[in-house]
Amino acid sequence: MKESILTILKEHKKEGFVSGEELSRQFQVSRTTIWKHIRVLKEEGYQIESIPRCGYKLIAVPDMLYQQEIKPLLKTKIIGNKIHHYKEITSTNDVIKQLADNGSPEGTIVVCEEQLAGKGRLGRKWFSPNGAGIWCSVLLRPSIMPQHASKLTLLGAVAVAQGIRNQCGITSGIKWPNDLLVQGKKVCGLLTEMRAELDSVEYVVIGFGINVKNIEFHDEVSCKAISLEQLVGSKISRKKLLAEILASIESNYLLFLEQGFTPIKEQWEQFNITLGKKVVLSSPGQRVAGTAVRLGEEGQLVIKSVKGEEQAYYAGEITLRT
Amino acid sequence: MKESILTILKEHKKEGFVSGEELSRQFQVSRTTIWKHIRVLKEEGYQIESIPRCGYKLIAVPDMLYQQEIKPLLKTKIIGNKIHHYKEITSTNDVIKQLADNGSPEGTIVVCEEQLAGKGRLGRKWFSPNGAGIWCSVLLRPSIMPQHASKLTLLGAVAVAQGIRNQCGITSGIKWPNDLLVQGKKVCGLLTEMRAELDSVEYVVIGFGINVKNIEFHDEVSCKAISLEQLVGSKISRKKLLAEILASIESNYLLFLEQGFTPIKEQWEQFNITLGKKVVLSSPGQRVAGTAVRLGEEGQLVIKSVKGEEQAYYAGEITLRT
Repeated sequence: MKESILTILKEHKKEGFVSGEELSRQFQVSRTTIWKHIRVLKEEGYQIESIPRCGYKLIAVPDMLYQQEIKPLLKTKIIGNKIHHYKEITSTNDVIKQLADNGSPEGTIVVCEEQLAGKGRLGRKWFSPNGAGIWCSVLLRPSIMPQHASKLTLLGAVAVAQGIRNQCGITSGIKWPNDLLVQGKKVCGLLTEMRAELDSVEYVVIGFGINVKNIEFHDEVSCKAISLEQLVGSKISRKKLLAEILASIESNYLLFLEQGFTPIKEQWEQFNITLGKKVVLSSPGQRVAGTAVRLGEEGQLVIKSVKGEEQAYYAGEITLRT
Repeated sequence: MKESILTILKEHKKEGFVSGEELSRQFQVSRTTIWKHIRVLKEEGYQIESIPRCGYKLIAVPDMLYQQEIKPLLKTKIIGNKIHHYKEITSTNDVIKQLADNGSPEGTIVVCEEQLAGKGRLGRKWFSPNGAGIWCSVLLRPSIMPQHASKLTLLGAVAVAQGIRNQCGITSGIKWPNDLLVQGKKVCGLLTEMRAELDSVEYVVIGFGINVKNIEFHDEVSCKAISLEQLVGSKISRKKLLAEILASIESNYLLFLEQGFTPIKEQWEQFNITLGKKVVLSSPGQRVAGTAVRLGEEGQLVIKSVKGEEQAYYAGEITLRT
């Protein structure tokens, strides 16, 4: 009912006040009950003016990624069918994995205002300050084998890049496998994890962190990170951007299930800033220099060494050489 | 201290009574404390005679897979370094995955007397009645990519088959990928699961259920299952068998980490009852008939169709045709 009251207040925002009596009649509850829901909305940050004998008027909506703010913007059928929002949690991947273990359906998302222990690939920290970005994870349950799940990492990068382009007009480049860079600095990182039997995936979690409103960065990453608002120089609506990205994840995911990896790979190549470049690939116990020549069929990076030998790599950290 | 008291009682089993006074002196605790530990041991099923002024005498050890019963039999360095024993749990894989998510180290095992929701591959039930079998899961944390984790499924089958052969003198055949059959009936099934980032495995769980003492089976599987005691016609010690299997898992795992999959594959082929046979492979939406010709490099089953075409399969259920 809280969400329905909010919807009515939003519809009447321009006209003026909605009377408590009208609301209580409409929902067939007492005016005290209406008032309790209004109080919860206020606690959530909604500015609502209440004047005796006039009623309630919505003045301002908080910049929060509440379910009731995202749901009306969604154009999806699956992705976002369940939205779990938190003010602060360790990480959205950690929480969604627990939900997934307990049977949450495909399309469930977890989003929060602040991650206390946000993480990137290879156990690295991801700084996720309160309200500054979109810290979100999406649960998928594809009927695929674990061998093919790495394709979803690349799918995630493509979907977020498309969402950012559609909503903010910024084209980011994908550094293999799935970092989004603009002007050489990171605007988004993705962390894909899975639970699987050895011949079937139980679920895949695509987590992404997008720097949207950050105006400064932690020392460790200050020269390597940038936010979308720093790039466009104006305000960006996190909830509209999130809705756009979820739509993009859904369309790419359905494409992947129907047509396989090829169309995703082609999209990835359009956003690519890795192929054709000289790169150094580092992974535990290994350091390879060469030219990144193409993606393999599973999304691996094929590197051609100075001797002219080609080899495909599934994992590792790329440094682009200029 | 409970385990140390038990050890002393076992050492003195033939000689006779150990006085409570002696025990309390040795552990520098009160006789009441000693008596409390004795009471716990009795509750666990140890038959201990206690006579005033004589002390305690161990009469019989229960047939339970307690840590204190398994530990003294272990010849391993890693596997079994932490043993969690339960009387009944949903499934050993479920519990060990929770422990793994909370940071339990490599080599941790979970073993129970009864699984309330034991499961096999593809979500099937695995009947796990109280005390009738070995229901156990082992936690591994190999530094490998998810693509290679399916090799550990085959490794698990090899290790259990070796353990059964060494301890019981029964040679079982491996039906691809990892069922152990004797006389065409299942004595053991394995279920391997993992948690992974898409380019690195966080952990792999090898779960196995061995029918040891079952004298009858649930209707659904009665013509397809058999127990080791039915096969040998005499009593089998579950704890000795488990210790032998854990040793075998460790030696095969170390071999795998040092030398790769080749030696495991060779062992698998020695226990094989699939290759060279006419088979039907069923998986969702697929049914393939042909001859199983060999294992692929990742442990896939290569099937040659009647037209002579070869294809490698990662997943599916094999029926052996006679």
